[in-house]
Amino acid sequence: MTKDRNNREDGKRRDTTARRRATAPRRAPAARAAAGRRDNRRSVDERLKELKGRLIEISDLKAAASLLSWDQATYMPAGGAAARGRQGATLSRLAHEKFIDPALGRLIDALAPAADHLSDDDACLIRVVQRDFDKAIKVSAEYVARAAAHGAASYDAWTRARPANDFASMVPYLERTLELSREYAEFFAPYDHIADPFIDDADQGMTTAAVQALFAALRHELVPLVRAIAEQPVADDSCLRQRFAEGPQLDFGLAVARRMGYDLARGRLDKTLHPFCTRFATGDVRITTRVRDNDIGDALFSTVHEAGHAMYEQGVSAALDGTPLGHGVSSGVHESQSRLWENIIARSRPFWEHYYPTLQRSFPGKFDELPLDTFYRAINKVERSLIRTDADEVTYNLHVMLRFALEIEMLEGRLRIKHLPEAWREGMRADLGIEPPDDRDGCLQDVHWYVGGIGGAFHSYTIGNILAAQFHAAAVKAHPDIPREIASGRFTTLHGWLTANIYRHGRKFTPDEIVEQATGSPMRMEPYLAYLRGKYGELYRLPAR
Amino acid sequence: MTKDRNNREDGKRRDTTARRRATAPRRAPAARAAAGRRDNRRSVDERLKELKGRLIEISDLKAAASLLSWDQATYMPAGGAAARGRQGATLSRLAHEKFIDPALGRLIDALAPAADHLSDDDACLIRVVQRDFDKAIKVSAEYVARAAAHGAASYDAWTRARPANDFASMVPYLERTLELSREYAEFFAPYDHIADPFIDDADQGMTTAAVQALFAALRHELVPLVRAIAEQPVADDSCLRQRFAEGPQLDFGLAVARRMGYDLARGRLDKTLHPFCTRFATGDVRITTRVRDNDIGDALFSTVHEAGHAMYEQGVSAALDGTPLGHGVSSGVHESQSRLWENIIARSRPFWEHYYPTLQRSFPGKFDELPLDTFYRAINKVERSLIRTDADEVTYNLHVMLRFALEIEMLEGRLRIKHLPEAWREGMRADLGIEPPDDRDGCLQDVHWYVGGIGGAFHSYTIGNILAAQFHAAAVKAHPDIPREIASGRFTTLHGWLTANIYRHGRKFTPDEIVEQATGSPMRMEPYLAYLRGKYGELYRLPAR
Repeated sequence: MTKDRNNREDGKRRDTTARRRATAPRRAPAARAAAGRRDNRRSVDERLKELKGRLIEISDLKAAASLLSWDQATYMPAGGAAARGRQGATLSRLAHEKFIDPALGRLIDALAPAADHLSDDDACLIRVVQRDFDKAIKVSAEYVARAAAHGAASYDAWTRARPANDFASMVPYLERTLELSREYAEFFAPYDHIADPFIDDADQGMTTAAVQALFAALRHELVPLVRAIAEQPVADDSCLRQRFAEGPQLDFGLAVARRMGYDLARGRLDKTLHPFCTRFATGDVRITTRVRDNDIGDALFSTVHEAGHAMYEQGVSAALDGTPLGHGVSSGVHESQSRLWENIIARSRPFWEHYYPTLQRSFPGKFDELPLDTFYRAINKVERSLIRTDADEVTYNLHVMLRFALEIEMLEGRLRIKHLPEAWREGMRADLGIEPPDDRDGCLQDVHWYVGGIGGAFHSYTIGNILAAQFHAAAVKAHPDIPREIASGRFTTLHGWLTANIYRHGRKFTPDEIVEQATGSPMRMEPYLAYLRGKYGELYRLPAR
Repeated sequence: MTKDRNNREDGKRRDTTARRRATAPRRAPAARAAAGRRDNRRSVDERLKELKGRLIEISDLKAAASLLSWDQATYMPAGGAAARGRQGATLSRLAHEKFIDPALGRLIDALAPAADHLSDDDACLIRVVQRDFDKAIKVSAEYVARAAAHGAASYDAWTRARPANDFASMVPYLERTLELSREYAEFFAPYDHIADPFIDDADQGMTTAAVQALFAALRHELVPLVRAIAEQPVADDSCLRQRFAEGPQLDFGLAVARRMGYDLARGRLDKTLHPFCTRFATGDVRITTRVRDNDIGDALFSTVHEAGHAMYEQGVSAALDGTPLGHGVSSGVHESQSRLWENIIARSRPFWEHYYPTLQRSFPGKFDELPLDTFYRAINKVERSLIRTDADEVTYNLHVMLRFALEIEMLEGRLRIKHLPEAWREGMRADLGIEPPDDRDGCLQDVHWYVGGIGGAFHSYTIGNILAAQFHAAAVKAHPDIPREIASGRFTTLHGWLTANIYRHGRKFTPDEIVEQATGSPMRMEPYLAYLRGKYGELYRLPAR
């Protein structure tokens, strides 16, 4: 359930597009500078025009590749799969080739000295493109093709291995994936930690050490909280497990998303096996969801989650469309938006004070006699469970931390692939106190590693949770009426604040700059902990700390 | 209602892809031959592999462009339109650039002498690619971009001008279109007639003179036939004009198409404003249809028509997929397949002997008391009408001939754009004996000229009608049981004959070769006239000639 997963489960696909999104320190090798001087008679305007023309062409290729993926997940007949894989690979490769064209590097070098005299948007564009370019040229085209081919083969094998609970068959794939991941990291040597390049790709400015410190501090708070909740009576969520027709489920979720600010003139909702959000242009940002007839929460919260991603993409300034600035800034900030709307808003009491009567009318006979409070407790039930994507917002981070820790161990060479199932079970026991009965619901459950990527695949989910609370707190501080507005079904003040402070900027600023500008401080976990303690302390009547 | 119209009405879009489909005499300029000798140490196998790699890349770009169009016509939100136009243009341009790459020309020249020693498929591939290449390089990339931009602007203006009945606003667009068309023809000078390059693009081997001779002979037979029918009582088709729900209409049409041989594991049906068929790969050939709630014929016959195109594309040998051989051979042969299935089969008495009871059950209360014969007469009602796409199969060709004659006059400079409405009315009066009350239902009705192309836009429809009868007669001669099989709802013998004799070959042979091999003679109109006279002579009880 993340943004634009190119038709894979909710993982970040190991592709160069995602990798190149993040940025690296500016460099201007002598060779490129010399080449730049050769055509220095051309005006800045001419060069800027050429640069933007090249970037739009690359953006068009990527948009077409994204449409190939969206179509594969939604409407493509089964017979189209073989050619579709090849078509997507061709477009991604062409986009990569066009981006690492030395002529593009010369343009950037020629323009960089003039950046201070350009408009704000153009100056940011040159800075970001330079970072992206410097990262992209480090990775050989040959590697990109090899990694993509392995990722496709591994994914294909995983789609069979998971239902068959057959981890053994995935061992050779994962071993090769680990080799490829190590090879990828070497393109960025020297590094402080082998996982740094992956983390920087997803969340520019973050490091392995920073994530480890953050997660250690958070675990220190979360484990006791989960334990305290587990000592309380379990919430009854049977009201969510009745039979619900598909049409009203889709309608209700979409009505909520529209009301929140998701613009259907520039988007649409379709059904897929795994929910995702994808952007083809500022005027076309689509979401998908899935529907379970025996769980009303699945479609509803998936729709709102993806709509959070989509509102971010729809909110990016139209002037940035078709440029590398024209989308969300990082995985963590993106995830903060899906989680803010899904959890902090759509699982809040004020939200349901307004929406519960509508829900009752939309599903006659299902919630007629049920008090709002029971429903509210049901959608916020905390439970030690096996599957990350089904986890509540308190235990969710423990699932993420386990995966992050295992990734680090694998990359460091301390954990061998064949011992992964055992390490997984140990981690689950230690942090969550339960153990999966098989690998299907253990280390085979997430697509991320099996689509060809070990490293940087999971940490952004928890960063998203932390940032969601920090952004929300800042918005409420600026506009204390927000909770009251939400209790009357109005979201414009919150949506407006997010647009003004986050969405519209796209990638003009770094993630750190966005957080600092929007909230007045760097990322901090206090707002998130305060949010969790406040909400779940009340829900589970926990003693004050 | 033609194959792959890239989201425009049933016209052939004036794009270079369509143009370059046809072929020209083989040439090997001295410069290219010399360049070819420079790398003659590489083996034929290596070169063939490189050639196919380049061709598949081009095919992938075109497939992605086609998906962009399909999506625009089916599911794209309105906000996506602006970026979508640019994305499609980028992919088409990149495909064109990659095709006219001189390195591709050198590969072809180096391989041509070895063609006789290659497999049958490979030898055909080299011959066809050489023809395509020699045509493509004649057209400047600058022209392609200019013509595409004008076509898009003109189409956009037409979408407003037609409902407003505003021909005057289209005059400057059409004048520019005519200029561009003349400019296009000059790339292929010298020619016998200025329309020859357009006709050869659509139907390799045909010329203006040949089409004119064919149409003159056909008009000579059709005008008296239409007159004789008009003297008979008008058929009652009110049974088709009841209210019909959308779902059952779509289901019935699709069930028929599947039974005929359209493979849904490699295809799908969606609704669009104007029906079309599009191919992304041999495993993914989609059709669209439209539904009118007061005309059961529209969705049904549109679906079958497009399924005819789609069965052709699905039937092309999978070994040719991704190469320039991997689709139907010409506009005329393609149209013969849509019309064969739509008219010769799905408007035949044997077909409805089987399907009428199913139709009656599918639409309870609508046909319960209606005799099969009345229904059969209704779906074959002949009527002098204004709109080509609604015309019956007898008068249809007169609509086509009018347009063809006007195109020739415009290209020859004998008809000025501003006099087009008047010439249209005169032509309608002369051939059909009726006159449109306004331009909306006159010379503004078809998109073809307004999307940027005057020349070669219409003649293929009538060639399709003629070839449909010729192919069908040959199939029945080879398998006299076909009508009996159809009367019991079985289509495998006919579908198998078409696959073996037409579909599987793709573009391995020329259209003339396909016709000759499949039917034992060149294209001839006698089977078509015999078909029309037999069917409509009986339906309208005309005196024997």
